[in-house]
Amino acid sequence: MAKPRVRVPVDELRTLVTETFVAAGMSPEHAASTAEPFIWANLRGIDSHGVSRVPRYLELFASGESNPAPKIEVHRPRPAALIVDADRAPGPLALTEAMRAAIAAARETGVAWATVRATTLSGAIGYYTGLAAAAQMIGMGIVAGVPNMGYHGAKGVGVATSPLSIAIPAVRHADLILDMATAGIALGKIAQYRINGEELPAGMALTAEGEPTTDPSVAKIPLPVGGAKGSGMSLAFELVSSGLAGNPIVAPYHSGTPEGRRHRQNATLIAVDVSAFADPGEYATNVDDTIDAIKALPALEGAEILYPGERGAATYAERERDGVPLAPKSWEELAQAAAGLGVAVPELAGAVGAEQG
Amino acid sequence: MAKPRVRVPVDELRTLVTETFVAAGMSPEHAASTAEPFIWANLRGIDSHGVSRVPRYLELFASGESNPAPKIEVHRPRPAALIVDADRAPGPLALTEAMRAAIAAARETGVAWATVRATTLSGAIGYYTGLAAAAQMIGMGIVAGVPNMGYHGAKGVGVATSPLSIAIPAVRHADLILDMATAGIALGKIAQYRINGEELPAGMALTAEGEPTTDPSVAKIPLPVGGAKGSGMSLAFELVSSGLAGNPIVAPYHSGTPEGRRHRQNATLIAVDVSAFADPGEYATNVDDTIDAIKALPALEGAEILYPGERGAATYAERERDGVPLAPKSWEELAQAAAGLGVAVPELAGAVGAEQG
Repeated sequence: MAKPRVRVPVDELRTLVTETFVAAGMSPEHAASTAEPFIWANLRGIDSHGVSRVPRYLELFASGESNPAPKIEVHRPRPAALIVDADRAPGPLALTEAMRAAIAAARETGVAWATVRATTLSGAIGYYTGLAAAAQMIGMGIVAGVPNMGYHGAKGVGVATSPLSIAIPAVRHADLILDMATAGIALGKIAQYRINGEELPAGMALTAEGEPTTDPSVAKIPLPVGGAKGSGMSLAFELVSSGLAGNPIVAPYHSGTPEGRRHRQNATLIAVDVSAFADPGEYATNVDDTIDAIKALPALEGAEILYPGERGAATYAERERDGVPLAPKSWEELAQAAAGLGVAVPELAGAVGAEQG
Repeated sequence: MAKPRVRVPVDELRTLVTETFVAAGMSPEHAASTAEPFIWANLRGIDSHGVSRVPRYLELFASGESNPAPKIEVHRPRPAALIVDADRAPGPLALTEAMRAAIAAARETGVAWATVRATTLSGAIGYYTGLAAAAQMIGMGIVAGVPNMGYHGAKGVGVATSPLSIAIPAVRHADLILDMATAGIALGKIAQYRINGEELPAGMALTAEGEPTTDPSVAKIPLPVGGAKGSGMSLAFELVSSGLAGNPIVAPYHSGTPEGRRHRQNATLIAVDVSAFADPGEYATNVDDTIDAIKALPALEGAEILYPGERGAATYAERERDGVPLAPKSWEELAQAAAGLGVAVPELAGAVGAEQG
């Protein structure tokens, strides 16, 4: 039985995180942009990419792996090609600026592609593709990072759990936001198997020594989804994102040097202006009708038919109204980090709920 | 024990298929373009998308679902946005023209996106993305088609096994060509389980009635790879490709009308000019080094570490030299279809091999 969570009103949480980033050396504008994707992730129920990550950012600032005062440069070598040099900016800041630039360029060129070089911890990538959907565009995104997943057929760590996101604007329904890792299972899910005393399905994880296991207590390295499919996508995402950024990650990692293992990420964000191709009203009607058709399929026993992002949109509405539930440990770590930088931490009057963590 | 395959010299096979398409009403130029992706698929070992499909095309011509004399129109509403109206052209023809147009546009704009409207049976999508890689570009492609796969949580058919392909140019190594369906298992693989008398892993297939099964003799509908991941990708690919094409497939299919179930496809092809972002020589070195790093990983017992497209490139070299092995039934059907149209069928002197089919 997990401890009850605390509920933090979203505006207070946003203010706290923004002020913490300012206290850590960010400009107010950069701090607000950086805070937003964390808040969004918590509102959407993606707590693993929410404000619990903020203390990690402060560590990355302290170690020099991330830069609180980056000079982000947006180059546009050709009309539809953007290179965003992130200068080790936090991912939420760099990717937000990159997607905004891609959206602006796509209004002219129909499609725009932003390669983001040298960023750190990108957070929930669906936030950035969702910015495109909110602008009536299709948003696509992939991220390349330091290897933490197996490669099909190999022992140990090979490639990263690099995510893919596709966001599609809808009207009657909430926007479709696919946001998936290329791993077959998340580390958090492995922990749930361990807590429940259940064996993992075969082909989901390796031990720390790199051997296959179905024992969740020794499973440390997730395996790619669909075997060669997941690791093939991850490898391709590295060559697309890190390759075009001129900032390779996978090859240096396996060279075994300390520099090769330093935390860093590269990303690709694409904005596609629907109005360049189709009537936006007809497009939206087709999206809504297609979602209706999927939702109307007969469900398997015990299953619920959801489209990507549907549950997140419902959670968002609920948490925006009732506050963001946080595990007490997450809240304490965030509050301590903020207080340590001299930021005023709000009192959570009546904020203790009875939910499970 | 399968029958021995026949070996057909690749030039004779190419000529036979091209002449057959000409006899079926295509122009010589269109016929050659249409034949090439089938030949390529056979050379790469993707026999399910090879010349065994040619008789099916002749049927699609006869039924009017595909058009042997299409007027393919390439529109360019904005600099990086192309709409290729395929006029029910065979997929190999329409997608080849679309990728060529995207490559040409990407030289100007850095990135170009072609939405292909109303094509038929696209074949092996890696061929088209591979055209970009051969031009020192990154190629990406997705196809949307008539539902033939389950949707996560639903009974029966929901979405299509829509493929994703990413091709990356290399120098020392063969180009990386990822070409994967969004299904967790191919129908051909299910047949192998049946022949071997083995049970399917859980979560791979549904019966014709739409219920989950591990019995390969009644498994008729593949399930998506990674559950919600595979069906989420497929649904997003439909909304990207069919949505921008203004030619929806999934919603009309589930409306239950005969028109809604008619065979048709839409596709998206993207060309990214590496030289817009990076020095092409440095890019290629990084690709080669990254492939080296992956190939050098320690292998799990009994496993071989391959990168996407590696096996296909080796098979290509072998078959180009020794001829294309075809199942006798495939060869007979192709030869009969050709002969029925008055095309001279080559004698296969000494072409009978001893391989398994």
